[in-house]
Parts: sequence; structure tokens; C-alpha cells
Amino acid sequence: MDLEILRHSTSHILAAAVQQIFPDAKLGIGPAIEDGFYYDFDIPNVTLTPEDLVKIEEKMREIIKKNEPFERIEMSKEEAIKFFEGKGEKYKVELIKKIQDEKVSLYKTGDFVDLCRGPHIDSTGKIGAFKLLTIAGAYWHGVETNPMLQRIYGTAFETEEDLKTHITRLEEAIKRDHRKLGRDLDLFNIYYEEAGAGLVYYHPRGARLRLLIEDFLRKEHLKRGYDFVMIPHIAKINLWNTSGHSSYYRENMYFMEIDKQEYVLKPMNCPGHILIYKNKLRSYRDLPIRYFELGTVYRYERSGVLHGLLRVRGFTQDDAHIFCTQEQLNSEIMSVLDFAFEMLKTFGFDYEVDLSTRPEKFTGTEENWAHATDALASALKSKGISYNIDEGAGVFYGPKIDIKMKDALGRPWQGPTIQVDFNLPERFDLNYIAEDGSKKRPVMIHRVVLGSVERFLGALIEHYAGAFPLWIAPTQVVVLPIADRHLNYAKEIKNKLMESEIRIEIDARREKINFKIREAQLQKIPYMLIVGDREEQNKKIAVRSRKDGDIGEFDLLSFADRLRNEIDTKS
Amino acid sequence: MDLEILRHSTSHILAAAVQQIFPDAKLGIGPAIEDGFYYDFDIPNVTLTPEDLVKIEEKMREIIKKNEPFERIEMSKEEAIKFFEGKGEKYKVELIKKIQDEKVSLYKTGDFVDLCRGPHIDSTGKIGAFKLLTIAGAYWHGVETNPMLQRIYGTAFETEEDLKTHITRLEEAIKRDHRKLGRDLDLFNIYYEEAGAGLVYYHPRGARLRLLIEDFLRKEHLKRGYDFVMIPHIAKINLWNTSGHSSYYRENMYFMEIDKQEYVLKPMNCPGHILIYKNKLRSYRDLPIRYFELGTVYRYERSGVLHGLLRVRGFTQDDAHIFCTQEQLNSEIMSVLDFAFEMLKTFGFDYEVDLSTRPEKFTGTEENWAHATDALASALKSKGISYNIDEGAGVFYGPKIDIKMKDALGRPWQGPTIQVDFNLPERFDLNYIAEDGSKKRPVMIHRVVLGSVERFLGALIEHYAGAFPLWIAPTQVVVLPIADRHLNYAKEIKNKLMESEIRIEIDARREKINFKIREAQLQKIPYMLIVGDREEQNKKIAVRSRKDGDIGEFDLLSFADRLRNEIDTKS
Repeated sequence: MDLEILRHSTSHILAAAVQQIFPDAKLGIGPAIEDGFYYDFDIPNVTLTPEDLVKIEEKMREIIKKNEPFERIEMSKEEAIKFFEGKGEKYKVELIKKIQDEKVSLYKTGDFVDLCRGPHIDSTGKIGAFKLLTIAGAYWHGVETNPMLQRIYGTAFETEEDLKTHITRLEEAIKRDHRKLGRDLDLFNIYYEEAGAGLVYYHPRGARLRLLIEDFLRKEHLKRGYDFVMIPHIAKINLWNTSGHSSYYRENMYFMEIDKQEYVLKPMNCPGHILIYKNKLRSYRDLPIRYFELGTVYRYERSGVLHGLLRVRGFTQDDAHIFCTQEQLNSEIMSVLDFAFEMLKTFGFDYEVDLSTRPEKFTGTEENWAHATDALASALKSKGISYNIDEGAGVFYGPKIDIKMKDALGRPWQGPTIQVDFNLPERFDLNYIAEDGSKKRPVMIHRVVLGSVERFLGALIEHYAGAFPLWIAPTQVVVLPIADRHLNYAKEIKNKLMESEIRIEIDARREKINFKIREAQLQKIPYMLIVGDREEQNKKIAVRSRKDGDIGEFDLLSFADRLRNEIDTKS
Repeated sequence: MDLEILRHSTSHILAAAVQQIFPDAKLGIGPAIEDGFYYDFDIPNVTLTPEDLVKIEEKMREIIKKNEPFERIEMSKEEAIKFFEGKGEKYKVELIKKIQDEKVSLYKTGDFVDLCRGPHIDSTGKIGAFKLLTIAGAYWHGVETNPMLQRIYGTAFETEEDLKTHITRLEEAIKRDHRKLGRDLDLFNIYYEEAGAGLVYYHPRGARLRLLIEDFLRKEHLKRGYDFVMIPHIAKINLWNTSGHSSYYRENMYFMEIDKQEYVLKPMNCPGHILIYKNKLRSYRDLPIRYFELGTVYRYERSGVLHGLLRVRGFTQDDAHIFCTQEQLNSEIMSVLDFAFEMLKTFGFDYEVDLSTRPEKFTGTEENWAHATDALASALKSKGISYNIDEGAGVFYGPKIDIKMKDALGRPWQGPTIQVDFNLPERFDLNYIAEDGSKKRPVMIHRVVLGSVERFLGALIEHYAGAFPLWIAPTQVVVLPIADRHLNYAKEIKNKLMESEIRIEIDARREKINFKIREAQLQKIPYMLIVGDREEQNKKIAVRSRKDGDIGEFDLLSFADRLRNEIDTKS
């Protein structure tokens, strides 16, 4: 059975049940979504509670038991409008008015009739298992000046077992929620009220995590022949006029005025890197030029769509722009792919690959498009990577590869992107002197390997459930002295391990050792070193691993070796 | 003789000479400045040229030869206005009108009379040696809507020898100008026209230099128990209302609107770090808390005062905020001083120290001021550092130490600052729980060690004249193959040294070896490795040092050791 149809049908039953309990409830829309469905309601003077969900579920079960059929009814638009006006369903009337066709379809189950394109399951009895999950506020059509409706989320499956598996996965996902872990592990915060939505403040541990990843990234870029550049966060509007963004991307940009000229808080790094490219006459011998920057950009997003580290208003891209010849395109793409997959492997992500090809409206010649698309496809093929073709889904200025990272729960996260661009080299009149002395246009590749550092950190937190591998753990080791008299020995250990650049802390509080262990475990610190009388006398440490519990006594040198090995292998 | 008086007197002679040559010239002002003097002129239909300066100098020499006395004349304001109106000196009239006193003084030398407070030398013959240096445009009173005058800069000394020494130093300074070297060594650029004034773009070599210094700084902060944090570049105006900046610092801030609320491009990092401090209840056991960030800030400066990397509109501070108890203040200041001096020593700067004490208007109690000022002074004393007291020159919110770095030419550059702050902890209501359970206010220390990374780089470029020590040289080694057939051997060497993390390039151009050496020397690359037939056969390299010329043949391993040693000792 098609789960989408099943879930959409369940949303009708949800709406029917809600209207039985709250006869004044007016209906918004009720689509199937990924992993479930929702329905939006306008219920005057009622704020739904979790207890209401239980009641609604009961009512739904009654309807399902009756095994009522889903019947399709066709009406003219006029009839349908009259029908829903009669029920006071103003949102439905609004929807019908926007439909282009002469006729509309409605679906009827029992007494409940809804405007619906269908299809549906045969009858309500076919719903094997369902559950209502949460209540949320949602503006009608997502527009903040419209009325706020109440949205009920739910999901449905063919069998109870499937539902159970899904619920367990949801609960696991809630435990891994990076916003919750960000708080619990004191990694970051967003000070909505005081400082603004969608703007991330990294607390010491989060900053450490981020800097570790950034340092690693820089080293990897250096190895691969990238040059680093750094550009300011603001620039004259000129650059965005030339790039074209000031017209079609305007609503996502932040503006300010300096010396009576319009300036922009940069929403992307490309124009800045292009300025540096253009600063000199370039020769074919200089190409490829690969400019890399951990570039922080700011883009307006509606406050309603902001979400932890995943949708923010300010983020840092591990951004590079490669300027190369047509002939170099293929090998550059191969190198970027290698780079991207090596990074995903390092962090333990699985992946899925999409190749987006030429859309109807495009810039550049068909020949160049064919060449670039072929370069992308053949790079994927020669690496034996299977991919989906997203026909016509390329951006107007060039084809691209999108790689989705799949985390420990199998959830996809937007990751590396490789985008060929014929547009900006044209608009900014980029050139190089070819071997024959003629002026030629370089091709540009925009590419990110992690994507946005913020989003990547969000994914990473959820992927590891906050239990980071040793090499990026903000705190790698905590020393737990059993009593105050062991504090000096604890400090001695700390100092020695700090010499090996281990990130180490001491929990010097006057608490029971079991309490300290529990806390360190909650803080997901990879190693706990317990030191008491015996350890101090023998000049040893009792080591507890976050993963394996007690792993025995070590002398400091051999433990340091173990750490170093685990860090170097990034295991 | 007082050089300031000598120079101011010479500026009168300059004005007299200019009016003899250009009778229409109207006078602006002509003060002594550091290292010299200038005079501003409004000369209708004449644009001064370097040839004019020669003519003016001749005329000045004539006047000096006549040994005319400087005579003081007193007039009532009214008389003086009439006098200068008679000469058409409108700028002088404007100046007199602003004078509060009833009487004004004028000085007369030969036929030349100028409004002037004095004092002067006895007679023009006392001027031992002088030179006119440059011509520049300058708005009357520095206001861009006022007429543009022509400013002539010059200097004067008691003896020809002193003048010569000074000129040599000036020439050396011009050679070291970081804007020129920034271009010649391709370190950075400011794209005034395309992207805006005062905004720095780091080209690959400049970015490498900057990142090397930043990485070094981070490590040094880590060693000293600082925690890293990272904050966004924009925040709601709220934060600056609380801090007070939105009123008294408003004209230096950049504003934008998001969701109908006013946002600010941060001009300083403190409020962001304070938010992180406030996020948790802090105990005396948590203090001192030291938040460090390489924080990029944006401040409006008038375009006229912008200057290379030294005065910009966007810059990165190596900024830390220390939250501590009153009792910890002294030891924290001592640590910061140690840190600052170690950094200056590492980069080979000498220094001068100023301590600024309580101004007339101040916040906080007299007792706290005394305690903090004492903490600063006693820290300096206990380190045996001599310092100047700048009485009453502290900011209203606390006393501070300013350290000026002195470069290879003895020129001072603004460097480390240690600023005690009683104001922000009050305004943001910062607290910690003291040992007795009571709520107490922490003290805040704002401190930078390099100051602004941009300004520091500017100073560094001029200090080393672009010939950076090996450990921060953007390119440390260049391999110069004598002919194409040595290219493979060159690559072999490059790869091996890259494994030791040496920043190395190959000059593979088909140019004569002497040309390549000259270029590498101009690029100030510390080591050149020349490889030809003999070197390849013997598996050796012929090494040339930027400083010492040819230093003989090495095998690669022993050369790598030499490099490693020079890098590690930062010599």
C-alpha cells in the first residue's frame, strides 16, 4: 500500500474526529508529509492540549472501526463554493476559488466531506495503525499576517509493528535533537529575545568543537592545493548588481547605508573571491586557482522557518571557488568528489547523490552545459558512485551535484554541493590568457564540502547523539579525584596530558565519585580518570571509558599513547 | 631649541613665500605637527606641483637669509577682523570670530603678518635646515562640505645633519609602507571603487600570514586558560541600548532592519560575550572566566582618515573579556601583561607603556577606581616596567594600560590594551554567587594583545619591511629549477618538504636562474633552493638565503632540520 495515500486518508479521519468533538472547528488543509500527515484547524476559543489528542485518537478509532468507504464526489466550482459556504468553511472556499479547473473533487467518509484531489484508500478500515504526535501553531498559508491555526501532526502505517518502529525512531531522534543536546552539553545558544533569532552564539565547548573541525578542514584544503583568502562581511551593492543578486535575491539580503551608498551584508562569498581573481591578469599557467574561505554569510529567512543550527540567519560556509579551463573541469570535479567523500567517511556519514541537469531557462551555451553535465556525470561514474538524475532541476547558471549525508538514524542532511557556473564569469567578465595568447573565459565551480558549518554541526550532534569521537570531543578527558587530598595528583595528570595537547578538565567538586562519574557520562566525555589513594601510590590511573565502562589501570604514558592513537586514527 | 617652535616658525616662512609667488593665495592654518609642519592654502586656479615646491623652497631660503625678526602685535578682535578683511583673508576672519578673548595676537616677519598665538623663534635666520615634503588636499576644518585647500607638508631641524637623518628615515619608512608592500608582495588589497573603502581583502599570501598569526594566538590563549567563544556579526539594538553605545557611539555604528526591528553590525564584542556569561548562574568557583575570540567588528570612520590596514572600517580584534572577582583583578592583570610582553618579544617589538587614570566624569565608586588603578600600577611595578601616567585620561568606565609597540624604525604603533570596566557589569546586571552565598558583581577586563589584527599586520609588514621571519613567512621556500629537465627533481623536493609542513613553491617559469633569484629576493622569500644537473646527481640542493646569500649545498634532511629549528625558535 502507498503510505502517502494511507496517511492522507488518515488526515481526513483526523479532521472528521475533530469536527465531531469540536463542531465549530473550521478546516484548513491536511496533507501527507514525509513520515506522516497533519491537519490545520481553526477552533474558536479552544486551545488543543495533549489530552485532546487522546480523545481525538479514540474518536478516530471509532471511525476506523466503522470501516466507512471513501467516496469521490465531483462538483462544479460554483456548487462546491456554495456547499462549503453552507458549512461556514471559509478556508475551503478560499482554496476552491484559487483552483483553475471547472470541476473540483470532494471525498466523503461517513458524514465528513472534504475538498480533496485524492486518491484515497477504499475504506477507513484499511488503516492498520496510526498515532497523533504533536500540536503546533501554523499561520494560514504560512503567512504571518494570516490567522494562526492549530496544526495536529500524526502518522500512520500498515501495521502496529511498523508504527512502533517509527515511534522508537522518533523518540531516538528527540533524544538526539541538537537543540536539546546543544543546551545539555552547553555547546551553543540562540538568544532570540536579547540578540535576535537565527543567530548562533557558540559557548566554549561548542566553539572548541567548531574550531577543531575548522582546523581539520583548513589542513585538508591546504593538502589539496587550495589557497586561502579572507574577505569582509560587507560590500557595496555594486557587486550584487553585477552578479544579479540585488534583483532576484533581494528579499534575502540585509542592507545598510554608508556614506550615502547602499551596502550589503554579504549573503555569499563569490563576488569577493571574484574581485581577488580579477585583481591580476591570469594566465592558463595559473589555473586552476582554488580560493577557499570559511566565509560567514547572512541571509534573511522568515522567523517561522528558523530551526536550531539547521535553518539560521547567519552561517559559515566551507566555501571554495575554483577558476579553471573547460579542459580542467572534469579533473577538478573528480578531486572535489574525492574530497567530499573522504570528509563524509571521516565523520561516519553515509550518503545519497543527486545530479541536477539543465532547466528550461538557462544561461550559457547548450554545448557548455552538455560539457559540464558530462563532466559531473562522468566523474561520478568513474568513481562508481550511483546517483539520481534530477532532470531540469539545475540552477539557471549551471548543472550541479548535491550530496545528502545520511546519519546514524538514516536521516538525510544537506551536505556537499558542486555547482558549475557559466554565469558569473560572464557577468564579471573574467578572463585568462590561453596558451595561444587569446583571451578566454574560465569556468567557475562553487563548492562546499561540509556545506554550512552550523548545519553540519547540527547534523554531527544528532549523528553522534552528542557522544563525539575522541578527536573532536570538546573535552576529551576528565580527571575525577575521589577526595580533596587527591587534587594535587589530579593536577599533575592534567598538566602532563595537556603537554600532549589533550583537552582535559578536573572535576574538583566535593561530590561522591559516583555522582561525578554520572555527570561525566551525561556530558559524554570519552574518558574519565579516577584517582584515589591507590592510584596515587602506584602512580597509576583508573580509566573509565564512556563507551565501555571500566577499562582498568594504566600508567599515564601508556594511556597517553592510547589517546594519541585514537585521535590520530579519528576512530 | 624647541623643535615645535622652530617648525611652527618655518610654516610662517612657507606661507610668506607662497604669497610672494602666488599673491592670490589665501591662508588657512599652519601648525607644527609631529615630525614637521604644514600650511593650508586656497590658491585660485593653481594646482601646486613638486616643481612649485622647489621654487617655494628657494623663496623661503631668501627670507631666512634676510634674518627678519618675528614681531608680536596685539590687536582687538575688531581691528584684527578689519585687518584680515582688508587682505581678503576670509579663513583668518572666520578663525578670529571664533576666538573667545577680547584681544588677539599677530606675528609679523618682513611684510608677512599672520594670526598666531606664538611663540616663535627670534628671527628667521635661526632656522638651521628645512625641507618641503609633499602636497595634499585637505578640506577646510576637515569637513567634506567645506572648500578643498592645498596643504604643503614640510619639516625643519636645527642642523642639516638632523634633517638628513630624518629624511633618510622618511625614505626608509616609504620603502616599508605596508600599502606598497601589500601590493608588491600581493598580500592584500582594498577595492575602494568596487567594494567600498576601509574593507580589507586578504589575498592568498596575506591570508596565510594572517592565519599563521591567528593560529599562534589561539594556541597561546589556550595555554593560558582562555575559553574560546564565537558570536554573530549582527545583533538587535537592545544590546547596545543596555551597554549605552546606541546613544554615545551611534555615529560609528552600522544599522539595518530585520523583521521591523533595528539591528546593528557589531562594533565590539563585549555585549555578545556578556550574553554567554549571563546564560548560567556563575559561582565564585567558576571565576575567573576568560572568553577569547578573534572577533571581527565594523566601525564607521570618515573616508578621509582611512589608511591602509591602520585605519579601516572592518577589523578583527584578538579580544578577550575576563570576568573576575575584585581579589583576582591583580593577578589577572599580571597574567595579561606577561602575555602581552611575550607576544611583543616574539615579534621583536620594543614598547612604551601608559597608565590612564580616573577622569573627571566617571562611573563606579572611588574605592573601586583606586583598587583597579592600584592593581594596574602594582602589576607594572612588580614586573619592573616603567610607564607614563596619563592623569585623568582613563575612559569613564575604568582605568587602563595602553602599550605602544615600537618598530625597527622606532615608530610607535598602538598595541595591547588592558581596560578595567565597572560599567558593563552594572548595566548588564552581572552576578556571581560568592563563597558566603551572597550575590556579587564581577569586574570585567577588556583586553587585546595584538590590538586589531589588521593594524598589527600593517605594523608587522613595516617592522620587517616585508621580510618576515621564517615561521610566519607566507612562502618559506621556493625551488628554482635551472632548466625544465630539473622540474621533476624540484617536485620531489617540494613534496618531501610539504610533508614537514613547509610552505613551499616552485618557480617553474622558463626564465634564467638569475632572474628567478632576483624575483624570489624581491618577494622576500627566506630560502631559495637551486637545483640543476649537479644537485640532482648528488641528490643535494644548493641553498640561497634571503639574508646571507649562498649558504652552500645541503642534503634535504639536514636542510629540513635547519628549517624546523628556525621555525620552532621563531628566530
